Amino acid sequence: MSFDYEKVPEVGPEALRLHLNENTAGCSPAVLAALRGLTRHDAAFYPDYTDVERATAAYYGRTTRQIALTNGLDEGLHAASVSWLQRGEDGQPLEAIVVEPAFDMYAACADAVGGRVVRVMPRPDLAFPLDAVRAAITPRTRLVFLTSPNNPTGLRLDDEAIAAVAAALPPGALVLLDEAYADFATGDYLACLDATPNLAIGRTFAKAHGLAAVRAGVIIAAEPVVARFRRVLPPYGLNVFAATAVRAALDDGEYLRWYRDEVARSRALIYEACERLGLGYWPSEANFVLVRAGTRLRALVDGLAARGIVVRDRSRQPGCDGCLRITAGVVAHTEACVRAMEEILCDGR
Amino acid sequence: MSFDYEKVPEVGPEALRLHLNENTAGCSPAVLAALRGLTRHDAAFYPDYTDVERATAAYYGRTTRQIALTNGLDEGLHAASVSWLQRGEDGQPLEAIVVEPAFDMYAACADAVGGRVVRVMPRPDLAFPLDAVRAAITPRTRLVFLTSPNNPTGLRLDDEAIAAVAAALPPGALVLLDEAYADFATGDYLACLDATPNLAIGRTFAKAHGLAAVRAGVIIAAEPVVARFRRVLPPYGLNVFAATAVRAALDDGEYLRWYRDEVARSRALIYEACERLGLGYWPSEANFVLVRAGTRLRALVDGLAARGIVVRDRSRQPGCDGCLRITAGVVAHTEACVRAMEEILCDGR
Repeated sequence: MSFDYEKVPEVGPEALRLHLNENTAGCSPAVLAALRGLTRHDAAFYPDYTDVERATAAYYGRTTRQIALTNGLDEGLHAASVSWLQRGEDGQPLEAIVVEPAFDMYAACADAVGGRVVRVMPRPDLAFPLDAVRAAITPRTRLVFLTSPNNPTGLRLDDEAIAAVAAALPPGALVLLDEAYADFATGDYLACLDATPNLAIGRTFAKAHGLAAVRAGVIIAAEPVVARFRRVLPPYGLNVFAATAVRAALDDGEYLRWYRDEVARSRALIYEACERLGLGYWPSEANFVLVRAGTRLRALVDGLAARGIVVRDRSRQPGCDGCLRITAGVVAHTEACVRAMEEILCDGR
Repeated sequence: MSFDYEKVPEVGPEALRLHLNENTAGCSPAVLAALRGLTRHDAAFYPDYTDVERATAAYYGRTTRQIALTNGLDEGLHAASVSWLQRGEDGQPLEAIVVEPAFDMYAACADAVGGRVVRVMPRPDLAFPLDAVRAAITPRTRLVFLTSPNNPTGLRLDDEAIAAVAAALPPGALVLLDEAYADFATGDYLACLDATPNLAIGRTFAKAHGLAAVRAGVIIAAEPVVARFRRVLPPYGLNVFAATAVRAALDDGEYLRWYRDEVARSRALIYEACERLGLGYWPSEANFVLVRAGTRLRALVDGLAARGIVVRDRSRQPGCDGCLRITAGVVAHTEACVRAMEEILCDGR
């Protein structure tokens, strides 16, 4: 797909990676141990998902017919686009609503299947533009990508706003609610799912569980919606390492709690640094903070890179002039980043 | 996707799996060693494919812009369907030709994206029905799935037949030549690729390299064709274990040669058994043999299952009445299967 991962700078093996919202501690040791237990035959025989599907469904309080594991949540986004944006007999493209600023994959997926991307532009404060989203809905709308907590702002959507978008959709349309970062948030939409039959929640093990390279996501929705996803998902989408990693990660609640706590402390450190340095920021419910550096953006991004710390310049995203996004992970990593920020900006004044 | 993997019987952990054409020896020890070298951080950071893409391209004598790695070859089949079978502005479905008997995924992929599946029925001897394939081509044909060596017959297609199908296609259509089993064959189409710009070859590491559970395939084609695949492939389709396994497998030519030799000897053992037992079979260039057991089919399939040996009943596939497919892998496994076949059929007479 054609999108903006390619613009990410090359990163040496020694760099501190604070640019892709990865888990900077790595996956849990218990997960690695499970992966190292796999044999030559485990690699050679098509995997069986019975156990990992049961465990995943139980983890989210659903049945196995209400979830679908995916090869990273990216595959879930792609499957939604294939399934909901296919042109009908009139040959006219169907529409996907993307609320800016947004994860690049939404538009890339919609575009790849011939859908028309309708972009809703942000408010100055980057709060969710509910009225503008509702106004963008047409009879041809088939997919609305929402993100909570949002990437890159870290802001969580109100349950009421999500429900209002779902209620405003024409028949046959779906809200794809991307909750990739919900593990770091004060709440999620899961409890409201039963009341919203035209909504699918996307989760991932890439972030809080530290499995970005292992590619494992999950779609959670009502049975008919999941059935429609499964119709376009391959039978062996997750490899055996992903299935094994997910199974082990679900059992290691202690690691998840430890990492969430690191992230919460790291966010607070970034907020404090922003206040000392006179930088704007958005209070985040995710494992990153969007910082408005304004005219000091280049000095900050380049100065951090020169010190081996990679952050993400998000200034080209709509509404994000002068902004960078900093991953909040292990506290020691955040401390190193904050020290470098102070060095750069205090020297630069 | 909805297809026939689901009908495969449940297989206990102690069974001899001769039903899915897997590598019955497992992956190479060198691959397992490489996988066990991956760390917690390797699992947590989005993978970099630069090295594995270069090595894969070099292995097939192409440039990196002439190959695309996929999450199993299944993802390549799906991407071809998404990209070539999307309805145009007239809203009419586009057509995919499937030459029976065929791998179930072709029709499943075409169907999942709203394509119309045009099935070409087999000749009694299951030889490639070139004239019937050409006759099935219409101005709406956009994709033709060919398989060489074929699954389930094991027959290899002539280069001339493949070229003739490609030459008969309307503009904008593609031949997807599935060479999943080419590592076991006496030849392949790779050398003819440059003369056939509307053809993409699909390869997999699932079979000869023993990586079915690791999910790694590759599309090989001219640059513009690969670019069209990449437009619908996700940026992180292979997980880090798949990328690492492929890289290690490409370097272990010795293992591949050893396994090819086991397969060749196993095929010969199956042929000999069929001749002793009065069973029909097709000489195979793949890691399986299609056996025509006729009225003895059920006794054979059930009798083998009762002895912990799982083979694949293919009698419901067009042209395959009374047929089963037996994976030809490690010689010792084949010997066990042949002994059981003789026991069942000699007792039964």
